[in-house]
Amino acid sequence: MLGTKFPFLPALVRPNHRRARVPLAAPDDSDPSRTPEPDLEPDRPVRVSPKLSRWSRARSIRSGRTRLDWPALRKRTAPPIPTPSPSSSSPSGEIQPSVAEGAEMDGDGGDNGEMTAGKAIYMVSDGTGWTAEHSVNAALGQFEHCLIDRGCPVNTHLFSGVEDMDRLMEIVKQAAKENALILYTLADSSMAASAKHACDLFGVPSGDILRPTTEAIAAHLGVAPSGIPRGGRKAHLTEDYFQRIEAVDFTIKQDDGAQPKNLNRAHIVLVGVSRTGKTPLSIYLAQKGYKVANVPIVMGVELPKMLFEINQEKIFGLTINPVVLQTIRKTRAKSLGFHGEMRSNYSEMVHVKAELEYASRIFTQNPVWPVIEVTGKAIEETAAVVVRMYHDRKHRCSMPRISRRY
Amino acid sequence: MLGTKFPFLPALVRPNHRRARVPLAAPDDSDPSRTPEPDLEPDRPVRVSPKLSRWSRARSIRSGRTRLDWPALRKRTAPPIPTPSPSSSSPSGEIQPSVAEGAEMDGDGGDNGEMTAGKAIYMVSDGTGWTAEHSVNAALGQFEHCLIDRGCPVNTHLFSGVEDMDRLMEIVKQAAKENALILYTLADSSMAASAKHACDLFGVPSGDILRPTTEAIAAHLGVAPSGIPRGGRKAHLTEDYFQRIEAVDFTIKQDDGAQPKNLNRAHIVLVGVSRTGKTPLSIYLAQKGYKVANVPIVMGVELPKMLFEINQEKIFGLTINPVVLQTIRKTRAKSLGFHGEMRSNYSEMVHVKAELEYASRIFTQNPVWPVIEVTGKAIEETAAVVVRMYHDRKHRCSMPRISRRY
Repeated sequence: MLGTKFPFLPALVRPNHRRARVPLAAPDDSDPSRTPEPDLEPDRPVRVSPKLSRWSRARSIRSGRTRLDWPALRKRTAPPIPTPSPSSSSPSGEIQPSVAEGAEMDGDGGDNGEMTAGKAIYMVSDGTGWTAEHSVNAALGQFEHCLIDRGCPVNTHLFSGVEDMDRLMEIVKQAAKENALILYTLADSSMAASAKHACDLFGVPSGDILRPTTEAIAAHLGVAPSGIPRGGRKAHLTEDYFQRIEAVDFTIKQDDGAQPKNLNRAHIVLVGVSRTGKTPLSIYLAQKGYKVANVPIVMGVELPKMLFEINQEKIFGLTINPVVLQTIRKTRAKSLGFHGEMRSNYSEMVHVKAELEYASRIFTQNPVWPVIEVTGKAIEETAAVVVRMYHDRKHRCSMPRISRRY
Repeated sequence: MLGTKFPFLPALVRPNHRRARVPLAAPDDSDPSRTPEPDLEPDRPVRVSPKLSRWSRARSIRSGRTRLDWPALRKRTAPPIPTPSPSSSSPSGEIQPSVAEGAEMDGDGGDNGEMTAGKAIYMVSDGTGWTAEHSVNAALGQFEHCLIDRGCPVNTHLFSGVEDMDRLMEIVKQAAKENALILYTLADSSMAASAKHACDLFGVPSGDILRPTTEAIAAHLGVAPSGIPRGGRKAHLTEDYFQRIEAVDFTIKQDDGAQPKNLNRAHIVLVGVSRTGKTPLSIYLAQKGYKVANVPIVMGVELPKMLFEINQEKIFGLTINPVVLQTIRKTRAKSLGFHGEMRSNYSEMVHVKAELEYASRIFTQNPVWPVIEVTGKAIEETAAVVVRMYHDRKHRCSMPRISRRY
């Protein structure tokens, strides 16, 4: 929230008791999200689960942060709504189907069409919806203490390319039925205003994700935003476009030590043993426009000479905790269908430790390479460290920053 | 902004005239952004440039949107601040170095260390900073009408991993010097409050990017956010983690028609002629957890039999305008060092058209494959279309949505 003091939750989100059971157009019955939540009474306000609240507080205290300044939440003292849990009336097996239902389901992160348990968050966008998705994901990172093991189950639903009012209204009505929160990014201010208005009318809590940022920038630049959805304009064949595509092409070709002769053309070179995440990290960085090469460290295989002839400042070593590495390698071996002897050398602890020590010796011999500990880091987090160091080294500025012109 | 009526710009962003020249600690002189903007007087409020405003309005009328409902901007009628332009006192060559300064510069999207012209936007994060970057990028999409050709130049500066108060204060002071806008994502509410407080003190306009979303979710779930930065917790070796990594591995191995025997293991198969963006699109989708294979259409080369034996519903055709394709291919040929005869067949219009017609015949013969026109679409936009169709087809629901469990 810009420029105002928190808390302002009451203004932000309409409590449940303002929700009315509005007669709605019957949606198609193939919609798996239709089933109403039997536990939720429409006129009961949303409460803080004391159990979750305790958990949150305990965790916060453990982490050395004792202050949890959420008076708007603390004010709500009425009994909590029943949180679906293994001990609740719905058997967890019934309402919480496993994420991995089979190979066909792997790709969509648990979109299994049976999300009747848990709170729904609708993300509505007139464009790709990736900004809404990204922001909601980041915000949900703040609720991990209760999302783990689906302690407070959440289902997100992304509606992208919503450009006409009819579809918008249909979504708002459906959100009212599902008691969903709607978070939207709608460039057209009349669409955004209609979304707000309709949500108020149907008692759906809602929020505009991008508008505060857009308005802050508008005021800063002294220029009004166009109000045109991203998908509505044509992308230009900009230098940036070609740069990103070239970086991805380059990075794919350089994966796993391929073509060491091209190492000098890379912006960033990653070095580490198998399964330290070199490939996904390379690809992530490539999509940001960096040409990345990665070179595996394998015991008994010499590193390419070229690696020591290029600018050493672009080389980054990756290391990882051996126990975690073993877990990752076992999973990998399994997914590749390895078994018995074939996988033993790859994922056995003796070998894992020996290989990490071998890598460590190489890193010691090359003290210019920063060594990044990737244990427990998401790809995005390691990428942030690499990019930050890359720019620091390039500019040697006192204030590390990653700058970009528009 | 959640739950409040716009416009509320005055509350959001502090006008420049509230900025005071506060004595600041001298930053390291290697910082290239130190040079003060000579044109900017600290006590003159930010104004709408009438030229830019006209441009914006003209474009808005052209695009059929005549309403530009930004009274907060219209109210500002005083003379505009001088916009740096080729005709201004600073020669553009001096203040606006070319993005592509050489191979070493390609990767960082114009981080050239000499960004003294243009308005600065500081993105400050206690984590990776990708959410701030993503949101600011999306918001800047609304100002393309004036960013094109650097009509209103903007420089963004990302400060990630800002976890202690000292560094935060240093950044705020530097922002005051550069007349920058600060947009932050700080999970720890005391850090966020300090950022706000310091920005107010130093007259720096500021905004909290993620807090409205976090608060809306907090109220919806009835659970307080943890206040722990993303980087502060350990990522878990979740199913999602392995899924994404496996998808990237799979997708890289399947690039450009490799290993057609594995086509049945893909979630999504992309088919199209060279340079329709199959590879970057595949990679983008892979990072979202989808296993993607792509199969090139090349005249005279038969498509793999396997393509017609797998589930046809996961196949998507890509097509593009021939003129645009030729431009892309010429750029590609140049970057690969092709010249003369070698590139003629690849990027000559006769060949380009013939190949697209050949692809078109294949698409006609396979009417189940949706054909996506990628001309002028960013990779992210095409990805959004593919993912939407993929989920629609899978669930046949009346209300297309992409759902995910947490």
